[in-house]
Amino acid sequence: MSQESQHILVPGERIDDLLMDTGFRIIQSREVFSFSLDAVLLSRFASVPRQGRIADLCTGNGVIPILLTAKTNARIDAVEIQPRLADMARRSVELNGLQGQIHVVEQDLRQYPAVAGNGAYDAITVNPPYMPVTSGDKNENQHYAIARHEIHCSLEELVQACSRLLRPGGKLFMVHRPSRMLDIVETMRKWRLEPKRIQFVHPNARSEANMILIEASRDGKPDIRLLPPIMVYNDEGVQIV
Amino acid sequence: MSQESQHILVPGERIDDLLMDTGFRIIQSREVFSFSLDAVLLSRFASVPRQGRIADLCTGNGVIPILLTAKTNARIDAVEIQPRLADMARRSVELNGLQGQIHVVEQDLRQYPAVAGNGAYDAITVNPPYMPVTSGDKNENQHYAIARHEIHCSLEELVQACSRLLRPGGKLFMVHRPSRMLDIVETMRKWRLEPKRIQFVHPNARSEANMILIEASRDGKPDIRLLPPIMVYNDEGVQIV
Repeated sequence: MSQESQHILVPGERIDDLLMDTGFRIIQSREVFSFSLDAVLLSRFASVPRQGRIADLCTGNGVIPILLTAKTNARIDAVEIQPRLADMARRSVELNGLQGQIHVVEQDLRQYPAVAGNGAYDAITVNPPYMPVTSGDKNENQHYAIARHEIHCSLEELVQACSRLLRPGGKLFMVHRPSRMLDIVETMRKWRLEPKRIQFVHPNARSEANMILIEASRDGKPDIRLLPPIMVYNDEGVQIV
Repeated sequence: MSQESQHILVPGERIDDLLMDTGFRIIQSREVFSFSLDAVLLSRFASVPRQGRIADLCTGNGVIPILLTAKTNARIDAVEIQPRLADMARRSVELNGLQGQIHVVEQDLRQYPAVAGNGAYDAITVNPPYMPVTSGDKNENQHYAIARHEIHCSLEELVQACSRLLRPGGKLFMVHRPSRMLDIVETMRKWRLEPKRIQFVHPNARSEANMILIEASRDGKPDIRLLPPIMVYNDEGVQIV
């Protein structure tokens, strides 16, 4: 372990290179949180503004804000409820020298609109917990359980918070599971977030979608576009995204 | 023109072979109605029961019921509001010797549940008018206008009729435009038709979807699957469906 690593890591953590030839590095931990393809694809999908103010909710170890800095100069507030993960995100931001652009906020997102103010953001990204509280492996540790299940925040609470945080015309970018698509679009519309672009991700061309990327606009007009699908593996089994 | 054709066609009509190596033939007319890829893809998508009773609404020249007979022995009622098209469908059915299985009904589908009875069908297929009444080319003729625009039947009236016509657990198969997806799924859920399978059709792998195929179940449980997408043309520009 290098001196830098000794200084910045706590036991069980490691530093990984981020994908996409960005040169970024990120602190990961098998025990509490590792980013996945979802985060990378959401970062690519999100057409965030070059300037202004962006929030990344459920930020985990901060992977999405770090990737977003490659395409925006906007201030990015990275919101995470778990102290252990917020601390990890803060150290990853520092590891990349991005503390001037990314601000890690340890906060329950249900209370966050009252702190940040209604309409404070031009864009929001979120890779939320996918699973309802009732499902899943009871043996998984608490950090993963909170990141995967709607323990601290239901889908509706999340969408409601996004609706309050975005200015009119502001954009929400979300990655989720296709099985929840109907609940997501209904809940978004209920909270004045109009879905505008949807892109499905399939493991390969012969498989059902296992990921959905959605862009919604605060107070937008109904007009949905279905983008070309993303296939993670090509016909030869080679990963192509 | 052969003797058979003289006997069965009215001026402006022609007999075309149906796709899919089925051996079926169909009466078409550039003036009033020609089937398109939508109908062929819906017929393939629809997993109709082998026995029982099926309705095809907005049947046009009867192309969908004729294609469905390749995979079901169920009785198929083909419902069409336009007398000119209902007559064309009836003659196409006779041309293929299918009058024992397909029954063409000239009827406004809004009144059809009162005629056929609630819960009368195990499955319904429908390739409805895609466009709201306000849009479109004012110069197109009345037959095409009725087939393309929601003149005689809004999306909600259509979904309501399907909901009444299907038995509990009965299946609806619809083809439509992706731009209407959110309205469609919301309206279906409102009328107790739960979307269960969705498949998008893209002109090619780099294009947005221009068609959506939806299967919904009367009184079904929420559980949506996103099937592998259909690409009409491959990377070499060859039509592959």
